[in-house]
Amino acid sequence: MSFSFQGMQYPSLADDNILDVLRLIRTLNVGPVTFFQLISRFGKASAALDALPDLSIRGGRKNPLTPCPRETAFQEMEDLISFGARAILYGMSDYPKFLHALNDPPPLITVVGHSSMWKDKDVVAMVGARNASANGCQFAQRLARELGESGLVVASGLARGIDTYAHKGALPTGTVGVIAGGIDNVYPPENAELYRQVREVGAIISEQPFGALPYSGSFPGRNRIIAGMSLGTVVVEASPKSGSLITARFAMENNREVFAVPGSPLDPRSKGCNQLIRQGATMVESAGDVLQGIAHLRNQPFEENTVMSYASDHSEQPISEAELAQTRSLVIEKLGPSSVSVDELIEQCHTSAPVVLTILLELELAGRLKRTSGNKVYLLESVVEKVA
Amino acid sequence: MSFSFQGMQYPSLADDNILDVLRLIRTLNVGPVTFFQLISRFGKASAALDALPDLSIRGGRKNPLTPCPRETAFQEMEDLISFGARAILYGMSDYPKFLHALNDPPPLITVVGHSSMWKDKDVVAMVGARNASANGCQFAQRLARELGESGLVVASGLARGIDTYAHKGALPTGTVGVIAGGIDNVYPPENAELYRQVREVGAIISEQPFGALPYSGSFPGRNRIIAGMSLGTVVVEASPKSGSLITARFAMENNREVFAVPGSPLDPRSKGCNQLIRQGATMVESAGDVLQGIAHLRNQPFEENTVMSYASDHSEQPISEAELAQTRSLVIEKLGPSSVSVDELIEQCHTSAPVVLTILLELELAGRLKRTSGNKVYLLESVVEKVA
Repeated sequence: MSFSFQGMQYPSLADDNILDVLRLIRTLNVGPVTFFQLISRFGKASAALDALPDLSIRGGRKNPLTPCPRETAFQEMEDLISFGARAILYGMSDYPKFLHALNDPPPLITVVGHSSMWKDKDVVAMVGARNASANGCQFAQRLARELGESGLVVASGLARGIDTYAHKGALPTGTVGVIAGGIDNVYPPENAELYRQVREVGAIISEQPFGALPYSGSFPGRNRIIAGMSLGTVVVEASPKSGSLITARFAMENNREVFAVPGSPLDPRSKGCNQLIRQGATMVESAGDVLQGIAHLRNQPFEENTVMSYASDHSEQPISEAELAQTRSLVIEKLGPSSVSVDELIEQCHTSAPVVLTILLELELAGRLKRTSGNKVYLLESVVEKVA
Repeated sequence: MSFSFQGMQYPSLADDNILDVLRLIRTLNVGPVTFFQLISRFGKASAALDALPDLSIRGGRKNPLTPCPRETAFQEMEDLISFGARAILYGMSDYPKFLHALNDPPPLITVVGHSSMWKDKDVVAMVGARNASANGCQFAQRLARELGESGLVVASGLARGIDTYAHKGALPTGTVGVIAGGIDNVYPPENAELYRQVREVGAIISEQPFGALPYSGSFPGRNRIIAGMSLGTVVVEASPKSGSLITARFAMENNREVFAVPGSPLDPRSKGCNQLIRQGATMVESAGDVLQGIAHLRNQPFEENTVMSYASDHSEQPISEAELAQTRSLVIEKLGPSSVSVDELIEQCHTSAPVVLTILLELELAGRLKRTSGNKVYLLESVVEKVA
């Protein structure tokens, strides 16, 4: 099934079985991109789950991949309900609308609080340094308050520093916290009271399993949701190479606006923001700058996302093993420990996109391939050695 | 006489009589633009001096304009010599080379210290708020030191705040102070020691008469020299509508680079700089940014300046009074209390440029017309009334 949004067609999971969806996305080696490729190939999560073991073997896995057990998914659903949270599937009317347009949207998010937040209002993200300056925190709080008063919802990451003051400033008008652990996992602990307040007036979102602790790898995913549900991302203070710049990059890659607050070159926490401004981010001195900067995105369709373009690439006809076998070694040969663009790979292999995409899917399910942002893939080190 | 510089021909006053030049530029109603128009029309300062009374009468002055007396100019030369200063004429090899390319270069500057400063090295200007923050001052001093160590001379205005720290940072390598009063006039008084130090290791420049006090109208002229002798102007801290932004505008109008140091939106002293960056100024976080930004201007010719284009516009044949009389009332009618572009005026009058320029020259000498930056002119209020 698919649904229409701002003149674009998107796939939808709204009619799928929620337990099957949960099982599929909670299965080892299944990330959002793979999830949607499986859905576009097999139609429903249940059919994809059935196909997983065989696909992983074809990708070179010794023992077939075991899908997340039905009992585990059921337990997570029970835990979510007891906690007062709910799961929202991609394509449902409660799913943050702009998140649909990502190349790797979460198939399922868990939410506590008011999901009406992002239905009625447009969302703007505010992120920044955890060790922010007093000035930075003050500015973040003021800007968030003004953005809220201008009718926007402020999304942030419930972290220390800028995130904290962004949420605080937007509490009177509504704010959304996206977290890197399970929906029940408050991190950092000193933000427990803020978590409670945000939940009460706004909402908390997580794509991680209930009970999961945040880990280094889950923060970029959290950041992509913050940027992805927002028309623009404001970076208030950020040192170079900080997570805030990753959030800004997600925003840029997904055709959202990037805003940055300038600061003194003497403060290392300004370097990241000043760098963004050099690269073309809009300078923010007041809420008006943000409102002006996102105006052209309001009620505008985004470009077709990769999820959809993959779906339309796939022929109804299943691809034969003979066809795949012919190309598999070529694809593996062209892969290495450095990321390579999937589009480039398809072009260099002189074969149809569905064949290459299927081979990549199988490699990923076998645990031999990783995806990075910007629709790129790379082989895991040990596999490279094995091939060489 | 003219001289060649970076592939362009410029007029030169080097062979003119220095006393005549001094008398002409010190005469009431004779500014730099008028000065060079007179020179291009009459060839030498002495001939222009002879023509002045008649021209002013034709422009509508009741009593003929009296040129600055020979004795007054002689006294100024004596005072300069006693003070240890010297006069450098436009076109002399000691005249700051890039200042030649302005539309309104000073015909004569007075200098104490080492005029070799700007002969051997390229100059960069640093300006900013008088009530600068501690951070701003620290940054200015560090940047000036680094620019100096990179082989550049730092020019500034010997004012309080940023100017002071820019000079201090560049003292070990050489710095130039341009002042708004006469060369002997230290302002503000607390910078007397800095004046002495800059004079010793670098140089001080003024275009004002010896002994003159700085006045509100002399600061923009001072700022145009700072920007005009430099390949680029760095603004460190500046509130909106400050003099530093005028300096930046001079730099822009004369095809020099403009640099600005970003700062927190919470500090009003950052507003001017952030505004410049929005308008396309290069952001400065280190000396490297400045060096990179001016690289393309080093050893590059500037566009032909207005002084030269006027000179080449003028025919050898003198313009008849009959010709002028025909157009004079039309030109006056088209002028008003708001600035109007001279080029626009020439076009609208459907006559040759020399005729319009001569009429404007006469009006100015009569004290009825003022020039503003960007080659614009306006009528003085009382004259407008008289015409109406």
